[in-house]
Amino acid sequence: MQDTKYIQYYLYKHIPLSKAMEVKAVEASKNRVVLKAPLPPNINHRDTVFGGSASALAILSAWTLVHFRLQHEGLNCRVVIQKNTMSYDKPILSEFVATCILDDNVKWQRFVKILSSKKRSRIVLNSYLECKGEKVGYFEGALVAIII
Amino acid sequence: MQDTKYIQYYLYKHIPLSKAMEVKAVEASKNRVVLKAPLPPNINHRDTVFGGSASALAILSAWTLVHFRLQHEGLNCRVVIQKNTMSYDKPILSEFVATCILDDNVKWQRFVKILSSKKRSRIVLNSYLECKGEKVGYFEGALVAIII
Repeated sequence: MQDTKYIQYYLYKHIPLSKAMEVKAVEASKNRVVLKAPLPPNINHRDTVFGGSASALAILSAWTLVHFRLQHEGLNCRVVIQKNTMSYDKPILSEFVATCILDDNVKWQRFVKILSSKKRSRIVLNSYLECKGEKVGYFEGALVAIII
Repeated sequence: MQDTKYIQYYLYKHIPLSKAMEVKAVEASKNRVVLKAPLPPNINHRDTVFGGSASALAILSAWTLVHFRLQHEGLNCRVVIQKNTMSYDKPILSEFVATCILDDNVKWQRFVKILSSKKRSRIVLNSYLECKGEKVGYFEGALVAIII
């Protein structure tokens, strides 16, 4: 996978909202992407994290995993989000972290196999949000990749 | 309801991401809130609207309706999003609009009745996203109000 510096550069260049949110890429491997963001640019009227920011960070973590893992495997694709659910379980009072984990290799292989044969494939990923080590939100999203 | 100028001022002041997204309040009545945002600050790597921005605008439209309608009815509450689903049905290629409609007065009255008696209540709202008059996305979110 590309290193976190490159990923952050890519996000800032192509998705300006990630820069406005001051997203930082903390970790990126083929099975795990961790992004974080500080409170101030993502604050709401109650001095906690705005739900839109929480949701956006979770989406970015899943999108980053799929986009860069496909690129790493030599598949040049358009990756877009199709649908998601998000639960905001606790108020987020400071810096927050989104972690997307995909350790089911069978699921990934099936996704790539369909992508290679049909030029289009769909995968469902999960991310969770944490603040100070406590789980504060949960995301599930379906992403679609299309070979270009 | 407060006028759109005040709502926009309030959003920019308290939710800085709404300013970064260049959200504009187009219409605000007790049954309907319309917000819009331009493409450039919300663009993604494919020159369409980033899913996180689409989701954030939809959340803001629902939140704005509940927050300002409660305020208008003299109920000073904390309003937060608890859960949402979002579907991104078509790529959004330019300025996009989120419309939250609540014309079910029985639903609102029930929400307010529980809020008044239990100091806490939950309401499910829907918003849709449009681009050039075409529906491009759909949001459903549960918001919780707590009397402060």
